[in-house]
Amino acid sequence: MNEIATKLNEIIKNDNSNVYELLTDIGKNMYFPRGILFQGAEAKRKADKFNATIGIAIEEDNPMHFKQVYKYFNNLTPKEIFNYAPASGKENLRHLWYKKMIVDNPNLKGKQVSLPIVTNAITHGLSISADLFVNEGDTVLIPDKLWGNYNLIFGVRRKANIIHYPTFKGNGFNIDGLKNAIKNNENQEKMIIIFNFPNNPSGYAITEEEGKKLVSMINKFTDQGKKFVIINDDAYFGLYYEPEILKESLFSYFANLNERILAIKLDGVTKEEFLWGFRTGFFTLGSKGLTEKSYDALQQKIMGIIRGTISNCSMPSQSIVEKLISSDDYRKEQQEKFETLHNRYTEVKNTLKNSKYKEIWEPYPFNSGYFMCLKLKNINAEELRKKLLDNYGVGIIATSDSEIRIAFSCLSKDSIQDVFETIYKCAKEIK
Amino acid sequence: MNEIATKLNEIIKNDNSNVYELLTDIGKNMYFPRGILFQGAEAKRKADKFNATIGIAIEEDNPMHFKQVYKYFNNLTPKEIFNYAPASGKENLRHLWYKKMIVDNPNLKGKQVSLPIVTNAITHGLSISADLFVNEGDTVLIPDKLWGNYNLIFGVRRKANIIHYPTFKGNGFNIDGLKNAIKNNENQEKMIIIFNFPNNPSGYAITEEEGKKLVSMINKFTDQGKKFVIINDDAYFGLYYEPEILKESLFSYFANLNERILAIKLDGVTKEEFLWGFRTGFFTLGSKGLTEKSYDALQQKIMGIIRGTISNCSMPSQSIVEKLISSDDYRKEQQEKFETLHNRYTEVKNTLKNSKYKEIWEPYPFNSGYFMCLKLKNINAEELRKKLLDNYGVGIIATSDSEIRIAFSCLSKDSIQDVFETIYKCAKEIK
Repeated sequence: MNEIATKLNEIIKNDNSNVYELLTDIGKNMYFPRGILFQGAEAKRKADKFNATIGIAIEEDNPMHFKQVYKYFNNLTPKEIFNYAPASGKENLRHLWYKKMIVDNPNLKGKQVSLPIVTNAITHGLSISADLFVNEGDTVLIPDKLWGNYNLIFGVRRKANIIHYPTFKGNGFNIDGLKNAIKNNENQEKMIIIFNFPNNPSGYAITEEEGKKLVSMINKFTDQGKKFVIINDDAYFGLYYEPEILKESLFSYFANLNERILAIKLDGVTKEEFLWGFRTGFFTLGSKGLTEKSYDALQQKIMGIIRGTISNCSMPSQSIVEKLISSDDYRKEQQEKFETLHNRYTEVKNTLKNSKYKEIWEPYPFNSGYFMCLKLKNINAEELRKKLLDNYGVGIIATSDSEIRIAFSCLSKDSIQDVFETIYKCAKEIK
Repeated sequence: MNEIATKLNEIIKNDNSNVYELLTDIGKNMYFPRGILFQGAEAKRKADKFNATIGIAIEEDNPMHFKQVYKYFNNLTPKEIFNYAPASGKENLRHLWYKKMIVDNPNLKGKQVSLPIVTNAITHGLSISADLFVNEGDTVLIPDKLWGNYNLIFGVRRKANIIHYPTFKGNGFNIDGLKNAIKNNENQEKMIIIFNFPNNPSGYAITEEEGKKLVSMINKFTDQGKKFVIINDDAYFGLYYEPEILKESLFSYFANLNERILAIKLDGVTKEEFLWGFRTGFFTLGSKGLTEKSYDALQQKIMGIIRGTISNCSMPSQSIVEKLISSDDYRKEQQEKFETLHNRYTEVKNTLKNSKYKEIWEPYPFNSGYFMCLKLKNINAEELRKKLLDNYGVGIIATSDSEIRIAFSCLSKDSIQDVFETIYKCAKEIK
């Protein structure tokens, strides 16, 4: 093992040996090399005459660049566009995101967690989590309403043992289903749990009450010797349309709860700030007993993974997000967009009140996010999808043989009634 | 194994079973899911009335976005900035890059290779290569002058057996050194070879003559049952300052040479177009016997890896690179920047003619790229580096105990003589 990796492991072990034991082989072996980047950082501070360490081309104190590129930007300096960002992301952006996180998640205040590390959006955060904490054969618990990419990230790439449990029980989240899934895998000391609220594809976010029950249920299992990695995929954070919803990430509650629980929070500007093409996200972690030294050690391992897969993330995206979230109008614009989506959500809810639809479908619980799902009654979802496309020019997603997903995020409020009416009409023809 | 993966494997096996056998476990198991993305693509073509499949938010036929973000861009539509790019990259950009590749590498013309797939720059291309073709324990041959990140990508992450050979023999590339390294690992049927010309850190690119010898030397080993994956890290492509240099990628020669050789070409706009922070690169592959069907199958596996690690690459970066390389001024601006760097190179060469320097160092061969290296004579490189920083404010990189790297790419022509004089003076003080 590389000696830097050994030192990082010692630091983590000293604070919380459970967290060390949760690391994969890659996680244990990983480190951030002290070579060129380290010497370059030293030169940046001290080389006041000539700095011949930099792996870019410089012209007149700016990164060399084409006019044919710079002309596509406004109000950004060449350095904010063309330079490399650090492997862990722009320092100021990381602090800004941390502050935003505390504002949006008041229960995080005073808890000791890492500074957010910049990722190439949430998928990258998930794959870093998988590299660090999911060894071949490790159990990963995911509800049966899930983003399909979890299978590629945790299953195909990391060969995890993925176990699904039914997402809903009645009109709420199936806490007992998760509890049983944990119980039924008695021989697994280590378990990885993925939470994704608001959920893709169902558009369900847990209530405050459900949140409390979930946290306490999982915490109890640690007495029986279980260790957990709790990954919070907070892609749709903030898009909550009902008052009873838990309006902060479960990360707030798990972050410093128990030495046998490591919590990860994955954020993305992708859905939250409507910047799908930007590829900017954040990876934050916390566990009881970890001090700043351990967070730094874990950060170095994460930086090693980032460097060894994509080196670093987009500089123009980071510079712009930095400016966005420190701008005066940020919250105002965010609120405007929220209201637009909220209105669409309300229109879907109102449309679905029509009792004739009960013959054809039952909506799954939904209260948040971009999507909602319908459970079809004796109608094949794929058949419906094809017929809708071919005969009506209406596109929906078949998420299983009997379920369809409707993205109200991409429908104007005016069109929503029409969409559901068309689905109804087409389904009646099939039935 | 997933049934889509099985089908992809059959297609590849039918064309060239060697390529199938070169795949790793991940490579064999990998596929691109047919789920939401597939249905979404169908809806994009057919849903002319309402499309409720899209996982973004839409407002007035454009991706929803903040004014506080759009104001940082010029001459780009919201779709060119905010939309997701496909997992394989923007289609038009891929065709443009292919055309550029053929112009820059005339020997590629008429050869059957994949369309370039967009990556998050070259590191990502390397890590995709590693996921697809480097299993634990596989032998990877890398010269001893190397970019340190290869160790993280192939060693720490993929647990490859990395073997180094001396980069230089006399004033040229050590073809015999590589030949011996291949010979000495007789029991390894499969070998991965990484070529990086112009080389980081040495700034050496092979000559036409060396290129011919290299290709024929490696090709001969296939008669003895060897199979090769040849990864061409073409990060510094085009920055050639001497007439005898081979001015195209070795990929041109390996791409369709032999059924037992799979060649990969990794490009990045990072160094080549001076867009370090953009994170845009290209992954192209070729082998004898592969038809379009196999290239499509391999592309689906690569798309699966991309989707399972970062989902997709920056949209604004891709849109801007697309516009850049199709602009009239692209080649003109590229030539201007090339000349600036060429002048710095010439200044380094002229400076080093001073015979007094022979007492202190011997330069390694260099003729291209951003960097050059000095072999120090009985002076500790780290001691020199520290003293130079602390006493002279000059930053250099110590690449080993007795070697330093100087990045002339980031020095103005005027400062170059001064930099070497200062290093000389400081080294004399130590000696």
